[in-house]
Amino acid sequence: MASRWITLPYMPDHRGVLTSIESGLDVPFEIRRVFFMRDVRGERGGHAHRVTHQLLVPVAGSFRVEVSDGTESASHTMNDPHRGLLLPPMTWVRLTDFTPDAVCLVLADTLYADVSYIRDWDEFVAMSTSSRATR
Amino acid sequence: MASRWITLPYMPDHRGVLTSIESGLDVPFEIRRVFFMRDVRGERGGHAHRVTHQLLVPVAGSFRVEVSDGTESASHTMNDPHRGLLLPPMTWVRLTDFTPDAVCLVLADTLYADVSYIRDWDEFVAMSTSSRATR
Repeated sequence: MASRWITLPYMPDHRGVLTSIESGLDVPFEIRRVFFMRDVRGERGGHAHRVTHQLLVPVAGSFRVEVSDGTESASHTMNDPHRGLLLPPMTWVRLTDFTPDAVCLVLADTLYADVSYIRDWDEFVAMSTSSRATR
Repeated sequence: MASRWITLPYMPDHRGVLTSIESGLDVPFEIRRVFFMRDVRGERGGHAHRVTHQLLVPVAGSFRVEVSDGTESASHTMNDPHRGLLLPPMTWVRLTDFTPDAVCLVLADTLYADVSYIRDWDEFVAMSTSSRATR
């Protein structure tokens, strides 16, 4: 799996903890969209992006993330706000088991575009397999 | 005061709430740095930025923000994750009264640079007054 953990710079002191992510430095892309999910019941995700890189950060609470490149899969608990999970394009992602207080912050390198999503698993597997075959 | 509220696009559905901020669209600047503060005891801020624009978003819990341009001041409770407070450069900011679960997300249009901070109130008032006098 090409997804990987990124340890985020953070400064704990007597005032609390400040965690910082600089565009192109702490993440290997330019930040163009920031979004966060909260009050999540059930699951989120269930899709892949054709071209978008994303960084997932559990800024509060915890949740589970399952990622797949169409061949290999991995599953992680996300509960450390100083560790982000970097997802390259063509990564299928499913987010589950959100605690009631969980907030999932996501940084992405593209603006929103509905056409960039792949929402059908079989289509995703076919695309990722054919992409690997032509490498 | 030139600080102003920005209502953030959000999509509530049966899965929860997703709130999105696109660079240059939902905020009037390019996002170059993202940081968040949590476990805050006491206060944060106590400075102004010479050139940086910032958007403050209470993604969890609540806190108070006091802002001043050196002449006028305002104080707000921040507890709505769909409303961000846009702070132009040369805004003195103080953050207080964080609830234990509070997370303050900040988007900024510059990378971190220690020299861009003004940490002395008297210096800030002198600079902001002279800046207004020359307009």
